[in-house]
Amino acid sequence: MLTFKRLDLEDAGRLIAGARAHARSIGVPVCIAVTDESGNLIAFERMDGSKVTSINLAIDKSYTATGIKNGTDVLGTVSQPGQPAYGISSTLGGRMLTIAGGLPVLSEGEVVGGIGVSSGTPAQDLQIAQAGVQAFTDV
Amino acid sequence: MLTFKRLDLEDAGRLIAGARAHARSIGVPVCIAVTDESGNLIAFERMDGSKVTSINLAIDKSYTATGIKNGTDVLGTVSQPGQPAYGISSTLGGRMLTIAGGLPVLSEGEVVGGIGVSSGTPAQDLQIAQAGVQAFTDV
Amino acid sequence: MLTFKRLDLEDAGRLIAGARAHARSIGVPVCIAVTDESGNLIAFERMDGSKVTSINLAIDKSYTATGIKNGTDVLGTVSQPGQPAYGISSTLGGRMLTIAGGLPVLSEGEVVGGIGVSSGTPAQDLQIAQAGVQAFTDV
Amino acid sequence: MLTFKRLDLEDAGRLIAGARAHARSIGVPVCIAVTDESGNLIAFERMDGSKVTSINLAIDKSYTATGIKNGTDVLGTVSQPGQPAYGISSTLGGRMLTIAGGLPVLSEGEVVGGIGVSSGTPAQDLQIAQAGVQAFTDV
Repeated sequence: MLTFKRLDLEDAGRLIAGARAHARSIGVPVCIAVTDESGNLIAFERMDGSKVTSINLAIDKSYTATGIKNGTDVLGTVSQPGQPAYGISSTLGGRMLTIAGGLPVLSEGEVVGGIGVSSGTPAQDLQIAQAGVQAFTDV
Repeated sequence: MLTFKRLDLEDAGRLIAGARAHARSIGVPVCIAVTDESGNLIAFERMDGSKVTSINLAIDKSYTATGIKNGTDVLGTVSQPGQPAYGISSTLGGRMLTIAGGLPVLSEGEVVGGIGVSSGTPAQDLQIAQAGVQAFTDV
Repeated sequence: MLTFKRLDLEDAGRLIAGARAHARSIGVPVCIAVTDESGNLIAFERMDGSKVTSINLAIDKSYTATGIKNGTDVLGTVSQPGQPAYGISSTLGGRMLTIAGGLPVLSEGEVVGGIGVSSGTPAQDLQIAQAGVQAFTDV
Repeated sequence: MLTFKRLDLEDAGRLIAGARAHARSIGVPVCIAVTDESGNLIAFERMDGSKVTSINLAIDKSYTATGIKNGTDVLGTVSQPGQPAYGISSTLGGRMLTIAGGLPVLSEGEVVGGIGVSSGTPAQDLQIAQAGVQAFTDV
């Protein structure tokens, strides 16, 4: 039998609040998604003024980061032409995201969920996702 | 040019809070989704203990109610065998939901968004969605 | 070698104009689609105030009517429980529509395209589609 | 509550007419789509002689430009190998278009919809989309 840990709704709220606060502080409205350790959505927020096409990008960045247990920016690097994961971005019906802004969320070394941010530049999205993770870790 | 109104993130939070409070009061954890007047997701919450298959059902109930400008329970009635909308449940890639729990949200007679609830019985889901709408209307 | 006839863009405009005029006269804003004899979209109009979920329903009604060379209302009848086409509504990724409002367009006994209408009641949609076909036939 | 502006059907007709006129003047039949500010289709025309595979490309170019609030040609540049949005073309079920010919439509600095053109070369498609936007802006 396996026992595992998973973000609860309160944790998800903390991740989103941390990301939202940072997004506001840099003036970049974004979509923010939090998934559990199985890649399923726990909570989502579309800040007023963010992009409608970012709804699913945020969800899929979180899904991808949870699944690969790594940042989507790392997948971006290894999926470049000539690199070992080239072509991976069209897998899973296009849900495998290779653009910065998705991060796994860890607790005691285990992946317990993920966070995905979309609507800014990839660099801004990553920074906002990191702020979300920080808010969770600080507790 | 058309001018129209749309729920903002604060409104969505109010709808979700109202639904969540009622869900707790009857001891039924659910997934709650709020969409804008065009059917796109604004906010989502999966309460701890609710069903993983309800994530998309909640989102699609809200989407459907927004689109048809009516409750999904009404669509359930008119899509029964022999009724005029029979067969509609397989449309839009299966996103057209005919099960109670999705309601449009109105402001001054206009549809400005929707709410969708899933994980209880359809009757419970509808009741929880109504509590969400009530919390929004009470403000 | 086969030779066939197909609606051109001008024909499609005539079909849409006829449908739109009737929709206005009965005060029911709708989505109107016209497809060619192969089921591919030629022209589409979403009247202000019609339902966002009707965009694809109108397109798919036209597609279905073209394909089955018959009205979608007829398919609704034969796909009822116990009838020979029961279950057909979930085929073609849910694009096979069994709700009134889709009609084939004929020229000299041959199907040259289709028209699909959605956003009113199925009976209104059918009536509006018939008005479109009439405007085309009258020329 | 948010208040928004959105292209109406008359605006969409003006955008399409401007694009169609330019397409004719350079002898390149195309598919032309206009979406609202949420990415949903308002109107569509397939000019006689344009490509059947361009139907959805035109619709998705318009959808993408509306969502990203920028031209699809810009997305083409930033999604090249080594660029920050590399891999984005497979997202949203493949609807995220990175090929020139999709443009957002603005009114008083706000995105109120989009236009997408497909069937010529990407450069021709972009030029035709620009002519559509120009016809809208000139009014």
